[in-house]
Amino acid sequence: MNILVINCGSSSLKYQLIDMNDEKLLCKGLCERIGDEGSCITHQKDGQKWTETCPMPTHVEAFNKVVEKMTSGEGKAINDVSEIGAIGHRGVHGGEAFHESVLVTDEVIAEYEKLSPLAPLHNPAGVQGLRCARKVFGDKIPNVLVFDTAFHATMPARAYMYGLPYEYYEKYGVRRYGFHGTSHRYVSLAMANYLGKKPEDVKIVTCHLGNGSSIAAVDGGKVLDTSMGMTPLGGLLMGTRSGDMDPSIPGYLMQQTGMTAAEVDAVMNKKSGLLGVSGVSSDNRDVRAAAQSGNPRAQLAVDMLAYQIRKYIGAYAAAMGGLDAIVFTGGIGENDPLTRGEVCQGLEFLGVQIDQEKNQRRGLEINDISAPGSRVTVAAICTNEELMIARDTLALAK
Amino acid sequence: MNILVINCGSSSLKYQLIDMNDEKLLCKGLCERIGDEGSCITHQKDGQKWTETCPMPTHVEAFNKVVEKMTSGEGKAINDVSEIGAIGHRGVHGGEAFHESVLVTDEVIAEYEKLSPLAPLHNPAGVQGLRCARKVFGDKIPNVLVFDTAFHATMPARAYMYGLPYEYYEKYGVRRYGFHGTSHRYVSLAMANYLGKKPEDVKIVTCHLGNGSSIAAVDGGKVLDTSMGMTPLGGLLMGTRSGDMDPSIPGYLMQQTGMTAAEVDAVMNKKSGLLGVSGVSSDNRDVRAAAQSGNPRAQLAVDMLAYQIRKYIGAYAAAMGGLDAIVFTGGIGENDPLTRGEVCQGLEFLGVQIDQEKNQRRGLEINDISAPGSRVTVAAICTNEELMIARDTLALAK
Repeated sequence: MNILVINCGSSSLKYQLIDMNDEKLLCKGLCERIGDEGSCITHQKDGQKWTETCPMPTHVEAFNKVVEKMTSGEGKAINDVSEIGAIGHRGVHGGEAFHESVLVTDEVIAEYEKLSPLAPLHNPAGVQGLRCARKVFGDKIPNVLVFDTAFHATMPARAYMYGLPYEYYEKYGVRRYGFHGTSHRYVSLAMANYLGKKPEDVKIVTCHLGNGSSIAAVDGGKVLDTSMGMTPLGGLLMGTRSGDMDPSIPGYLMQQTGMTAAEVDAVMNKKSGLLGVSGVSSDNRDVRAAAQSGNPRAQLAVDMLAYQIRKYIGAYAAAMGGLDAIVFTGGIGENDPLTRGEVCQGLEFLGVQIDQEKNQRRGLEINDISAPGSRVTVAAICTNEELMIARDTLALAK
Repeated sequence: MNILVINCGSSSLKYQLIDMNDEKLLCKGLCERIGDEGSCITHQKDGQKWTETCPMPTHVEAFNKVVEKMTSGEGKAINDVSEIGAIGHRGVHGGEAFHESVLVTDEVIAEYEKLSPLAPLHNPAGVQGLRCARKVFGDKIPNVLVFDTAFHATMPARAYMYGLPYEYYEKYGVRRYGFHGTSHRYVSLAMANYLGKKPEDVKIVTCHLGNGSSIAAVDGGKVLDTSMGMTPLGGLLMGTRSGDMDPSIPGYLMQQTGMTAAEVDAVMNKKSGLLGVSGVSSDNRDVRAAAQSGNPRAQLAVDMLAYQIRKYIGAYAAAMGGLDAIVFTGGIGENDPLTRGEVCQGLEFLGVQIDQEKNQRRGLEINDISAPGSRVTVAAICTNEELMIARDTLALAK
């Protein structure tokens, strides 16, 4: 069965078409600036790429364009839409309503929409994507929602509760949910498989490090704790996001600067993290380059990131009562040997030893960077959230 | 030399008179409800206690009453004020201005007062205390300020910086400062001494657990990291304080509840923590009792506390690259074997093993609760911030 995997942002639409017989990618692409001037689609097949500027006032036109690209022209991958067996959608915030992937119904969409206050930027876009997909592809193709939060649903209350009055949890859903769950699930399964063990038998810390970053303690195949919180702002320092902090700070900044709460929130989401500390860029590669040219604030930013990751690894080893493996994934985790090396420096007491040469290798699906004799297996693993979504979609569509 | 140690709150004044020849406590006491109806003093000497209700419109009257109690009546400890060699004051927030204890001058008071925006509840009270003390005791007795933040001044930037735009650090002093420094210093020195090692040679995690709680990574005698942040609201769950969180939450609560930023701040400081989660009490003893009678929210609150402490220990071991000792201190740390036991459960992989019987002992200055063969030494140590303040005061007054 071919599965179309969809990730809808408020003005974007990412897609992948995967043949699930051999989990092979047939084609993929991205629609950008939907609802805006200069909207365009980039379609890719077998390493070739085609870009076309075309009006896309809504996600409906974008989906129609995706269908056109998949079924005609040079990048054609299928003859027509009937060859798509099911559509898998990335859902961002499943709140406490969705503990696993679900077949999309009207009730599911309504429930998903209700969670919008928890993810005001992401959930409405996801709902819009679902509605447009059903409009364009019709009711015969099943749609499946795979939530970024779902893998974290196994967290115990001691890990997901904040130290606030309990009523805020009951009335407003204030708790840790965690995100990037599909990625943490994919790489933790890949690591267990690589170790030749059942997921039940391993304690893994998975570090998803990209523009957004989060770390999870995956104990026996289940998430025990994760760094992101009620929203994707929490946890670690990220590209432009601050991560956790003393919660008196937002109010103090309002008082000192005259900003509103919404303005402080925007600063913490869009002008903080690597960008805010370094003043250089939100992209780890740029910040690393600036640090190597001697920029002290860039050096500070990358030091903070590596240090915070190291602390999370120690904290989660303590939470799980031990550690068998560490996974690095995401743009930074897969591609930056410096960050991996700095994170692992000082973790020798946990049984972590890495091989500096292996750490430099590139282009491997699974790059085991552990030194011979390292008690803890450390690897960079290429994540594949789309494939994970496609697998769930296949299982539910059958 | 006799040293008078002072800890001024906005409506309270705690004092201890210590003979530094043998570090013996001569007398101590507490003035409460200063500036309010029903103000009173409780004076203690040699295990006896006297309470007297008397008007204290300001800290000046309170200091005069303290002098009266120390020099006359049944609780008399000295003949007159000339027998006090110096006065040591607890300073709360020393910002980046004070990295160590200082002799009080007009300039020091002015600098201390300038830091009030960072600690609007505490610093003004401390300044008031200093001014009143100089008025009552005159200029001949030296006053020394010992800051709660000073021991943490050795933290590297990677530990003290938040992931916010750098200018907020430069303009508004937004960074981690840490508190309870005098206690962390006292117990880490006591632990090094107990181990028969130089402070330079040990890696200790010190857990000060009381109404306010904080944890520090003391590496080679210097603080590498600590849990409290820009204010004492950060870090761990406390009696009524929330600890760190996803910084989008205060704004979300404003939006959902209609509270102002100041109201949310008050909730996070006064109605959160053990109290907010359990709904029972801010006192760990009450919450423990409720948990043992089967109250699930009380159980959750104590579980969260132990779990968070365990994670900090793991994180700080990772930060230091190893762990030689864990110290529990403060009201909970010294007196609650349940919390100590639950924290250490699951830390066996770090070389932590405790002896359940030793863990039940009470009344020891240093209760080593490690099991035979534990690689990490774990002890409950009675803190003595007043003595630490007196020692610094003596050193500077000489």
